Amino acid sequence: MTESIKQMMQTLGQQAKDASRALARAATKDKNAALKAIGEALEASRDTILKANQQDMQNGREKDLDSALMDRLELTSDRFDGMLAGLSDVQSLTDPIGEITDMAYRPSGIQLGKMRVPLGVVGMIYESRPNVTLEAASLAIKSGNAIILRGGSEAFHSNQAIAKCIQSALESSGLPKAAVQVIDTTDRAAVGELITMTEFVDVIVPRGGKGLIARISEDARVPVIKHLDGNCHTYVDDKADFDKSIPIVVNAKTHRYGTCNTMETLLVHEAIAKEFLPLAADAIMKADSNMELRGCEQTQAILGDKVTAADESDWETEYLAPILAIKVVSDMEAAIDHINQYGSQHTDVILTEDYTRAHAFLAQVDSASVMINASSRFADGFEYGLGAEIGISTDKIHARGPVGLHGLTSQKWIVFGNGETRA
Amino acid sequence: MTESIKQMMQTLGQQAKDASRALARAATKDKNAALKAIGEALEASRDTILKANQQDMQNGREKDLDSALMDRLELTSDRFDGMLAGLSDVQSLTDPIGEITDMAYRPSGIQLGKMRVPLGVVGMIYESRPNVTLEAASLAIKSGNAIILRGGSEAFHSNQAIAKCIQSALESSGLPKAAVQVIDTTDRAAVGELITMTEFVDVIVPRGGKGLIARISEDARVPVIKHLDGNCHTYVDDKADFDKSIPIVVNAKTHRYGTCNTMETLLVHEAIAKEFLPLAADAIMKADSNMELRGCEQTQAILGDKVTAADESDWETEYLAPILAIKVVSDMEAAIDHINQYGSQHTDVILTEDYTRAHAFLAQVDSASVMINASSRFADGFEYGLGAEIGISTDKIHARGPVGLHGLTSQKWIVFGNGETRA
Repeated sequence: MTESIKQMMQTLGQQAKDASRALARAATKDKNAALKAIGEALEASRDTILKANQQDMQNGREKDLDSALMDRLELTSDRFDGMLAGLSDVQSLTDPIGEITDMAYRPSGIQLGKMRVPLGVVGMIYESRPNVTLEAASLAIKSGNAIILRGGSEAFHSNQAIAKCIQSALESSGLPKAAVQVIDTTDRAAVGELITMTEFVDVIVPRGGKGLIARISEDARVPVIKHLDGNCHTYVDDKADFDKSIPIVVNAKTHRYGTCNTMETLLVHEAIAKEFLPLAADAIMKADSNMELRGCEQTQAILGDKVTAADESDWETEYLAPILAIKVVSDMEAAIDHINQYGSQHTDVILTEDYTRAHAFLAQVDSASVMINASSRFADGFEYGLGAEIGISTDKIHARGPVGLHGLTSQKWIVFGNGETRA
Repeated sequence: MTESIKQMMQTLGQQAKDASRALARAATKDKNAALKAIGEALEASRDTILKANQQDMQNGREKDLDSALMDRLELTSDRFDGMLAGLSDVQSLTDPIGEITDMAYRPSGIQLGKMRVPLGVVGMIYESRPNVTLEAASLAIKSGNAIILRGGSEAFHSNQAIAKCIQSALESSGLPKAAVQVIDTTDRAAVGELITMTEFVDVIVPRGGKGLIARISEDARVPVIKHLDGNCHTYVDDKADFDKSIPIVVNAKTHRYGTCNTMETLLVHEAIAKEFLPLAADAIMKADSNMELRGCEQTQAILGDKVTAADESDWETEYLAPILAIKVVSDMEAAIDHINQYGSQHTDVILTEDYTRAHAFLAQVDSASVMINASSRFADGFEYGLGAEIGISTDKIHARGPVGLHGLTSQKWIVFGNGETRA
């Protein structure tokens, strides 16, 4: 069995590699035509796809999957529209491939610059969100990459239905069908192959739970753009404007729970904690009366029975649920130290009107997104104008934060010479 | 023993991580002052360092190391001057850290852009070139990274002498000494630790033989910016200008043999092979009468006894020696196919006056550097104006080709808000 999985994956890999050469050379208009055809095919199959998703949802309920996962899995008609809108956005994005920048003469006489090129073959491993199938495929096509997709077993029917549309549209628009391949087995050995086929795959993008990603990073031989957890902080400085801060805190925590850019810990400067925390707690509870607040001792002293005691594990946890950890800190440096110690380098926010502190926080917090006076929920490919995102990277090399088109490309050096030799 | 190595490496790692925070916040003037102090310390110890290198050279001769390796190991007074000039170049480079670019308003009202930040801790594993110790250290300091260096045992005395100067200069200029640490054991277990300490090390840059790098890539858990071999090609098109092409071919092959950007295979369009090859062969033999030419059947038919028969392995080999493989190809597509099949995606060159072919070669050859009408020897950090290079990457993600300051940084997203929440 494993031998046949290996054989199957080698075949997928070779097909992807061959397809990637055609994709790398494909003209912008041909890639856009393929994306348009995919949109039409999906619209034509809307009912089929939603029905497939209902089947996955039903199976999920029977398996008693948790609510965050079920939220990710669900494909409503609105979300389907959102998917198509995202696809349309990707069409209208500027094709990054072939972009030549920074051409300048060197003292030797050569003219040196950079050209943006696809990575080649992308391997994508994800869990429950079926819209990832389309997002990842459309970004791969637009950026001239072939992609091999491995979605979660809980979204199997949704993903297969979406994949069917993508492949038929690719075929009808003259691009290789193998530019987008969806692995049609849930056998885990397929993942093991995918992440070690360095001869075929140029980069692996895993999306899902921390356990999955840690396992993949451990076993991969192909470079991984990984997204670990999103333990996001908002630090409310003593120079914060409450009128801006309360709505931001409410939005960052209650806008959506199953997303990685949701605030999990609120840090509050001790000089304003007594004034700010009751206002913030009331506003948050008003937005969601099911919210559970867990605080440090100082927070408990201020909020009384509105809050339970937080322990060490609360500072480390990505709840993905209506739970908020709250800690009172002595100053901004203490907030930064807390973020550096417990954060996941995803998205961290300072709320302040103080210029120097805003600047220092920006420079010193080593996270993929660092924000001043805004909700962490903005850390998202659509909000960042990337069209769609293939993931949110918590890595430090290559791409940080939301990864869109550019994260699936790299720049090679190009030289325009006129007979130059090295002295 | 291995346990004590592990303990030693964990200590180095923790020290590097602590130092990296100070480095990330260090002002440009403080980093430059440290680099200046290092230059002064090296100049003051010139004789000591050259003497240490002589000891390494003597040991190398006794161990009968091959000529390419001995060439890399040797530190002449001229090369020492080159090292100091490189260090001075790094001082005068613009500090990339803190650079804010692309700030633009999004429809939501947030202003989004990017800030350039250090990677954190770099682990560098290299072989014989002692000048790499200084290059890597100076690029790490300037880019706000801490670095842990592991040089080859053959350059042990040279590296320790250089490292001593660097650390004393760091100390005297107020930056943490642990910003640059040189592992002072040749025990291989130290490398095993270095490349798996994901809690301390953010990126590994190995430089050396293919075997070393393959081994490191296989075992590493930290992301690797790797440089495999440099099997560089020059394709002479039938529209090439011979007056430009002959000097380029001679330069690309004979300028220096132990370097990865040296041409190893010459590809010649069949329509001009009869005319071009005898001229090229004479010019190359004139530059180095020890050159050995190995050709395909068509080349043998043209060059007769000036050439021996090339076999499959010649197309795959980075000689690092006065040997040149020559192949006659039917057209540019055949040249590109050959390069894609046998090349190492390092540096490949087309010599042509034809605009469309030049453009197509540039777009279709998937190498870190692709050149028109210039010598592949230009693929180098100094020639590219990077100040010095930490390596030449043959990877596709993060950084391709010569890796200088920017390769040791990444960009995080920053958001200037004014109370925005996500709708």
